[in-house]
Formats: sequence, C-alpha cells, structure tokens
Amino acid sequence: MTLDDLPTPCLVLDRVVMTRNIARMAEAVGRHGVALRPHMKTAKSIDVARLALEGQPGGITVSTLAEAEYFSAHGISDILYAVGITPQKLDQVAKLNAMGAQIIVITDDTDTAAGIAAHPQPPRTLIEIDTGESRGGIAPDSDALVEIAERLGPRLAGVMTHAGHSYGAHSVSEITEIAEHERAGVVQAAERLRSVGHAAPIVSMGSSPTALHAVTLTGVTEVRAGVYMFGDLFQAEIATHGIDDIAVTVVTSVIGRQPGRVLIDAGGLALSKDRSTEGREKDYGFGLVLDLAGQRSYGDAIVRRAYQEHGVVELNPERAATLKVGDKLRIAPNHTCMTAAAHDRYHVVDGGEEVVAVWSRVNGW
Amino acid sequence: MTLDDLPTPCLVLDRVVMTRNIARMAEAVGRHGVALRPHMKTAKSIDVARLALEGQPGGITVSTLAEAEYFSAHGISDILYAVGITPQKLDQVAKLNAMGAQIIVITDDTDTAAGIAAHPQPPRTLIEIDTGESRGGIAPDSDALVEIAERLGPRLAGVMTHAGHSYGAHSVSEITEIAEHERAGVVQAAERLRSVGHAAPIVSMGSSPTALHAVTLTGVTEVRAGVYMFGDLFQAEIATHGIDDIAVTVVTSVIGRQPGRVLIDAGGLALSKDRSTEGREKDYGFGLVLDLAGQRSYGDAIVRRAYQEHGVVELNPERAATLKVGDKLRIAPNHTCMTAAAHDRYHVVDGGEEVVAVWSRVNGW
Repeated sequence: MTLDDLPTPCLVLDRVVMTRNIARMAEAVGRHGVALRPHMKTAKSIDVARLALEGQPGGITVSTLAEAEYFSAHGISDILYAVGITPQKLDQVAKLNAMGAQIIVITDDTDTAAGIAAHPQPPRTLIEIDTGESRGGIAPDSDALVEIAERLGPRLAGVMTHAGHSYGAHSVSEITEIAEHERAGVVQAAERLRSVGHAAPIVSMGSSPTALHAVTLTGVTEVRAGVYMFGDLFQAEIATHGIDDIAVTVVTSVIGRQPGRVLIDAGGLALSKDRSTEGREKDYGFGLVLDLAGQRSYGDAIVRRAYQEHGVVELNPERAATLKVGDKLRIAPNHTCMTAAAHDRYHVVDGGEEVVAVWSRVNGW
Repeated sequence: MTLDDLPTPCLVLDRVVMTRNIARMAEAVGRHGVALRPHMKTAKSIDVARLALEGQPGGITVSTLAEAEYFSAHGISDILYAVGITPQKLDQVAKLNAMGAQIIVITDDTDTAAGIAAHPQPPRTLIEIDTGESRGGIAPDSDALVEIAERLGPRLAGVMTHAGHSYGAHSVSEITEIAEHERAGVVQAAERLRSVGHAAPIVSMGSSPTALHAVTLTGVTEVRAGVYMFGDLFQAEIATHGIDDIAVTVVTSVIGRQPGRVLIDAGGLALSKDRSTEGREKDYGFGLVLDLAGQRSYGDAIVRRAYQEHGVVELNPERAATLKVGDKLRIAPNHTCMTAAAHDRYHVVDGGEEVVAVWSRVNGW
C-alpha cells in the first residue's frame, strides 16, 4: 500500500525524519549527562515512545490520565503526569499505580498538597515551579514552596518547571537565555527544599526549544520535551529545526478547483484551527502544501482558509491548473500536537510513499 | 451520576436546550412547507439524529464518509454527502450503497462528473452551486452547469448550495438578504437545467442562519442545517440564537489558581483552537465560563488562553479567590462543531446536573 491508496484526509508519519529528530534531541540532552523523559503528549503512541526511549532510562511524561493508562498498559511504568493534579483524580492515579504504574503527579497548591498527603494511596509528587511562563507554578523563592513541601511530607519527590515561553522566542540566543533561567529557577527551588531538609531527588525541566539549546543543565536531573519528535512549522520558525525535519503531515485530496486555488478535503478538523504561525515571520495559514512525496514542489503555497472539512489552497494559476480533482497533496502542520489529535492512527513511511506500518494513538481523556 | 462525578474535561449535552433548538428550526423550515435534511457534521450521533428527524422525511446530510457509514449502519439510508466527491471515494460510496444506503454525492467538476457516470455503480449526484460563499461550486449562470449535467446523465439528481458566508453577517436583515440570494441562485440553476430537459428533482440549500431567517423558500425542495441543534457563542453573536440556547458545553476542573485567574484542565484540545469570535462584537477567547449548573454566575469571564491541556480563565480577583483546585466549571464553546470533535461521547443532561445518558459520536474519516 502506498500513500496514494489511503482514504483522505489521513495522518502520515515519516519514521526516517522522526528518528533523526529523536537522535538529535538525545544527543543534545545526553551531552549534559542528563536523562530525557520524553513527553508523549504529541505522539500519544507506544510505537513512538519505544523509539524515543532508546538509550534513555525509560520514564515518560504525559498530559492526560488516558495517556497514563495507555502507556502503563503497554509496559511503561515511570510516568510523570505533568498537568496539575486535582483531588478527584487521585483515585484514578492510585488505581493505575496499584496495577503496576508509578505515576508521579504535580501540584503548586497548598490545599491540594494536603489532599495528596491525606489520600490512602498518595502518589509521589513534584512541586511545579514557574520560571517565567506565568502559566502554572510558584516562584522559586516563594514562601509557598516550603509550605507545600511540608504538606506533602514523604510524598515529595522534587520539583519541575516548563519554560513554555521559549515558544515565543525569536532567536537561538533568546532560547538559550530562557533555558538558563528555567534551569537556574528549578535548581534554586530544589536547593531551597534541600536546605530545610527535604530530599528533592527529581529536578525536572524542559520544553523542546530549551532542551535543545541549553548551554548547561547543572543541577537538573531530567529534561522533558515532546514536539521535537515530529516538529512543525511553528518550531521551524523558532529555529528548533528546519522545514525538512517535520515528520508528520496530512495527506489530502483535491476536491475542487478554481482559478488560483484548489479546495482540499483537509479542513479545520483534519489540520486543526491552530494559527500559531500568525504574526511570525512567515504566516503559514493552516499549513504548508507539499506534494505526495513530501517535497515543496508548490513553493510557498499554503492552506489559506479552513472550514470544517474544506481547506482552501492558494496557488499560482499555472500550478492550480495542473491539479485535478482526486490528486493528492501533503500538508505540513502549524502545530503538530493539535493536528495529530484529530487522527486516531499514523500511516508510517520510511522516507518514501510506501506505508510500512499503521500505529495507533490514544486521544481524549 | 451527576456532572460533578465525571472525569474532566468532558462534553455535556443538554437535551432540553437541544430539543428546543430542534423544534425552533423545524418550525422555521416547516412554515415554508419544505423538508429539513439535518446536517449531522456537528452532532455526529445517531441519538441526536433521531431527535432532529422527528417530523421530517428522514434524509440527513453528512460531511465525511465515516459519518455516512455510521448513520447507514444505524438505519438511516437517505444520506447527502455534502463535500465534493473524488473519483477514489466512489468505491466506498458504492460499497455503502450496495449494503442499503442511498448516498447522494456532490460535484462542481466536469471531469469528476464524467468519472461518476463511468463508475460501475454510480451514485445519484447534485451539482454544487456557488451563491456567494466562493468556496466550492459553480455560478448559477455558468456554462459548466449544463456541461456537468450532460456528463452526469441519468445520475443527475439536482442542485445544492451552501451560503456559508451567512456566518459573516452582522444582522438578521443581512442574513435574510443572503438567504434570498442563496434561494434565488440555486433555483435559477435548477430551472436552467430543467429548461434543457434535465429533471433536477432536488433543490437543496442551507446554513443554520439562512435556514432560520429565509423569508421565502419558493422553488427549494429541502433545507440543510446542522449547528442549530447545539448552537455556540459564534452563532449567538450573529443572532441565530441566544447564549441560553447553547446545548453543548465542556465540564472542566480548576487545576491551579493565581490572583485574578484560574487554570483549568480544558485547553486547546478540549475546547479547540477555534477563535471565530475574534473580531466580533464580543471576543469570547476560547469560551465563556459558566458554573457547573450552566449558569453565568461568573459574568463575562472567558477562557483567555489555551495551551494543549491548560486553559487560563480570567476572573475578577474576588471570584478567583472563591475557587479552589478541583472545583468544576462549564465552558460554552466558540464553535461547537470544532469543540465536540475532540470528544468521543456526550454526557446528556435534561437541564440539571444528573447524567441521564451517554451518547457516542463518530469522529475521524
């Protein structure tokens, strides 16, 4: 079976490109002598996880309890659930842990820390530190840090942070600066805890940009990153990788043609409504148009508009006239985490157009 | 079980509100003596389809072949697949039709029309007419109209159009004007076909706004609409209904709190990245915040930012301080088609917080 045989729209994963991306991140993190705990929120696939874990200690990061359940059922036990826990979710964590998982949760909340400690099967817990993103977490120098640690008691396993604002950077030097701030902040928090007698064995940081470009990771025990496996147009704009390093694309059929544009059957659901390249150096609309072989033979053509199941591709009129209804294109996504989530499987290729495997994904919650 | 027992994030459907919306549309279309062919692209649920079909002839509209397969497996045979067909997809249509479905396809392309006629099991086909949206379709007065009809031969079943630009309207009078243009255009196309000897029994138009606000439907045989069943913030902004008529919401947990805002576990995946209210009279960000009972007790609070699994709700500091981690909220979506598509089921309530049923959805392709 080749890509041309697949029903459209569908998701394609180029294993050659992904393997290169994984090797690059492993090298970048490995040179610091630090473990990589791959974030599976983008890939949501055990087949991808196995490749991302090669040469690593074996722990992963997840963004949903559905992922935690799926990966633990597939034999991965060391799982960091990196979204703030709620008291109600502790029962499900305990259930999975009783079945063999070792799920670690995070919190930045004093009451929740007390709730964790009071639970009959409390999970190990990291305190979430804010190192500049201003999403979740407490400041490294906050009074709440020691208070939360005291509530957690022996369940305290360390600290974690995510410099998600690195996605807003415009240069490698800016990412490097954010990475150092991320590192210094989370290490400062760990040292504060240790200075008052807490162990804090785990000091976890990471985002794909800062994991790749950190100059030093002194004091950090592990790095988390996820989107690096697949890449996307947004990551290409912030110099995390190149356009040729995007491993996931959507195969689509031309379903209509007009002067200077064609309609495709990949719209807002198949591509997502993510517009993260808006306002960057190059606005890719809802994705960059490639040919079925994955080459840029349509130049800078993009998906300009996205309806639920229709995409509008703008092309110069000569190129538009060469396409007929039923012809296939591939679309490189703005934000691969969002695009992949609409699809329940990957059609895997090894650089060419032959489909060598089909890998499932765990969507939802 | 009540809404407070559900894992979050999850999708809730208020059957009382939906039933009222369905009755309103049935009345609006019924007063013209025209059939309603509900578009199931929003609901993607047989349970919803059965309610939407009460008092109607029984035909539905779908946006994917996955929907066509699902609904025909559940006993609905008269199905209009309202996205331009490709030659490759004809085999699957034929397979479903051989199993009892009566799928009608659409095209605006001369070559595709020839391909349909040449297929061993050609489906009935409507010619897609553009009445101002400028997405797909040919103009009512275009030469291609008769040419496509001649290629289709006896498979020609009529004409259809979709005035999707009605979503860009700013008043009921503007919608009324678009509806009349939609009606006149598709009727003109049907009459041109009849004048040269084609039957054109089906004359199909519709979008939720134009279906509700058309002054006359003379010459039209059926109306298509979908989002009206659920409503959303965008539809509320264009006066298709009120905020209280939104039947679908996302239940979410507070997972963190800061001065003037809380973090919730509904982000870009659970709510979608749709930003369709941006630039309208009221920008709802990624959704309007309701309490667990579905009431607006947080005033105009919205989800201001959406990460993959995190949403940021801005609240006045006094209200933010009353919320603790684990508290539940409900979020009304910008664009219900996009938000619902991330979820595989509805938790159904009848106005209250008791979950009276769980209904599945058919996502993907």
